[in-house]
Amino acid sequence: MEVFPTAGHPIVYGDWLEASGAGTILIYGHYDVQPVDPLAQWTSPPFEPTLRGEYIFARGASDMKSNGLAVLKALEASIKNGSLPVNVKVVFEGEEEIGSTHLGPFLETNKSKLKCDLVLSADATIAKRDLPSLAYGVRGILYLEVSVQGPSHDLHSGEFGGGIHNPAQVLCELIAGMHNADGQVTLPGFYDQVRILSDEERRELARIPYSEDEFRQAAGVKQTFGEKGYSTLERLGARPTLEVNGLLSGFTGEGTKTVLPAKAMAKISMRLVPYQDPSIIEQGFMEYMRKNTPPAITWEVKHLASASAALIDRKSFGMRAASEALDSAFGAKPVFRLEGGTLPLVSLAKMKLGVEVIMIGFTLPDDDVHAPNERFYLPNYYRGIETYIRFFDLISRQPDFKSPA
Amino acid sequence: MEVFPTAGHPIVYGDWLEASGAGTILIYGHYDVQPVDPLAQWTSPPFEPTLRGEYIFARGASDMKSNGLAVLKALEASIKNGSLPVNVKVVFEGEEEIGSTHLGPFLETNKSKLKCDLVLSADATIAKRDLPSLAYGVRGILYLEVSVQGPSHDLHSGEFGGGIHNPAQVLCELIAGMHNADGQVTLPGFYDQVRILSDEERRELARIPYSEDEFRQAAGVKQTFGEKGYSTLERLGARPTLEVNGLLSGFTGEGTKTVLPAKAMAKISMRLVPYQDPSIIEQGFMEYMRKNTPPAITWEVKHLASASAALIDRKSFGMRAASEALDSAFGAKPVFRLEGGTLPLVSLAKMKLGVEVIMIGFTLPDDDVHAPNERFYLPNYYRGIETYIRFFDLISRQPDFKSPA
Repeated sequence: MEVFPTAGHPIVYGDWLEASGAGTILIYGHYDVQPVDPLAQWTSPPFEPTLRGEYIFARGASDMKSNGLAVLKALEASIKNGSLPVNVKVVFEGEEEIGSTHLGPFLETNKSKLKCDLVLSADATIAKRDLPSLAYGVRGILYLEVSVQGPSHDLHSGEFGGGIHNPAQVLCELIAGMHNADGQVTLPGFYDQVRILSDEERRELARIPYSEDEFRQAAGVKQTFGEKGYSTLERLGARPTLEVNGLLSGFTGEGTKTVLPAKAMAKISMRLVPYQDPSIIEQGFMEYMRKNTPPAITWEVKHLASASAALIDRKSFGMRAASEALDSAFGAKPVFRLEGGTLPLVSLAKMKLGVEVIMIGFTLPDDDVHAPNERFYLPNYYRGIETYIRFFDLISRQPDFKSPA
Repeated sequence: MEVFPTAGHPIVYGDWLEASGAGTILIYGHYDVQPVDPLAQWTSPPFEPTLRGEYIFARGASDMKSNGLAVLKALEASIKNGSLPVNVKVVFEGEEEIGSTHLGPFLETNKSKLKCDLVLSADATIAKRDLPSLAYGVRGILYLEVSVQGPSHDLHSGEFGGGIHNPAQVLCELIAGMHNADGQVTLPGFYDQVRILSDEERRELARIPYSEDEFRQAAGVKQTFGEKGYSTLERLGARPTLEVNGLLSGFTGEGTKTVLPAKAMAKISMRLVPYQDPSIIEQGFMEYMRKNTPPAITWEVKHLASASAALIDRKSFGMRAASEALDSAFGAKPVFRLEGGTLPLVSLAKMKLGVEVIMIGFTLPDDDVHAPNERFYLPNYYRGIETYIRFFDLISRQPDFKSPA
């Protein structure tokens, strides 16, 4: 094992290259997790894995310790049995949750060390407990922090209220204006590069067994909501979004404080789809801020993270092997879906290593990933190990797996 | 001295009743202060009074320890000299900053003990360092906490973003809709009971030496802002406002967390003017929430505090005595103004004790009351003592001061 330092969290590398003449899979995972905040809502401590029913609860249980361990256990079992028919290189990064800032430079710098025929990402989800799925696209992301300032310091709302443009109010107005009544994002040029779904794709997506009831239950909402003209499934994977991730201004403790706050801050992230370019979207955001921020207010936008969306060929040899492996472990053919989340690796691997990424993982939509009481459905840990073992075997038989030397 | 417990902070009482045959003044003050938050912005610790130049810096220095001490020192000096010509009862409460919840019941219960001919509040401001002023009105307040909830728990913005009505976005939309483009509050019925300024009053208010530059400097803003059709001075005292005092939702720490928050909270307070009734305004607020909150969102409004606005007769004997006392201590005739802040006592004293309140205090508009680095201009501490001593003397000579026994 090798540890590669970066300016942020280090990248961990290991390999097994004893399948001479066979192709090579680069296995990707990440060891970092989301913050645990709000801690008070956890039923058991986030860093003490706790079994309840068929689930294991812990921060990272689903994103992505269980998937990561399953793939390592699959390798261990195959190697011990002398039955691993492919070479493997394993890369675990520590910055997936903050935009994989140093993964690109690492892939670039270590191109020849990381040479491979396919990337397998274990950071992936399935549709339902007993129904495997394969993602053929991931959304990108642009994560910004917006700060607005009115007065130079907090003021007394009685002495100054009425004469000052309140920055918390201005921030609310700016955010309110970012969507129209149809749930569309109003930032200039936001939809200009969005890939249009083909009729065939829309029909296929509609075939995914999806229950609006179950979605509502997993989210704990009274009803769904989103961009007009699209189904919930389309909105979740094929359409871009703009979400407020956090708001902070003024006095937020118990009781009252009659303050007119000096500042207000919002964390705002956009999920992007092919072929939106994060830097063009960011320009549109800045243009919106310039046009709409009133003159008494100063503002600043901090770029926190970005990654492009990506698409994978549904008919490639990797997808064929993955589909068969899942079918055999679950006894059900996987459905093809568009992933709502972001995996910077997918576009990076294409750009830096020139290979395709196959995503096989077992996180469920109601695992409360990134939220309190994150959990993982344990039976799929064992099915997961089986899936990966079969995938290594099946991929080694694909005629176009091994690229010409 | 007596201490009267309440369900909240106790009320402190003391008296000196040896001016037999003379009238009685009830002196009002409060010993509580605002929270110090945000602590990091204080130059010196908030509870270690620090001298810098002609100012003393501390939480409460201006609101209202210096005013309170000045009036007590004036009493001490007069009593020691044998020259206090009026009877005094002193009441200091501990809940002024949180709406004086228990002051009304205290005044009601102890009506006969608190019997007096006039109330003097030392919790007051002047226009400029060398220009005294007298407030003939104070604004009321209605302070609410609004909570909205979408999902039952925080969600992953990649997995769920696009299918959920984001409560932080909804809260922003609700707040944005509370003002129109002319800076007017849109809550149903908000302006229905607002007292219209007479032309004479508007002319008088316009005579207050007011510098837009100095106001901007004290607030630290590039430009002022407010309700269309009114001067800044009118907006600050004679017109009601709605301010966001605080905002909180989702992830607000360093960096990124791709959370779709379950909840969002805003502290919202309204400064009210005669003759707005806080409970009617609150009904309008609830009606607005009912009408405008989208169906996927649940909401709750917590009533945190309220107080009515009040007006004082500018030609009363108390105002005459106060005006002369300030003139003699400052060498300048006071200007009459409408106070932007709230003093629940003013309406309470009228209702419970049947007497008028005169407000004499020396807090300056740029003292950063309720904010970090609160300060008090020390030369006015000494002028303040002199003003109060003269006020006691002058009021005792007013023929209509002592009410018939």
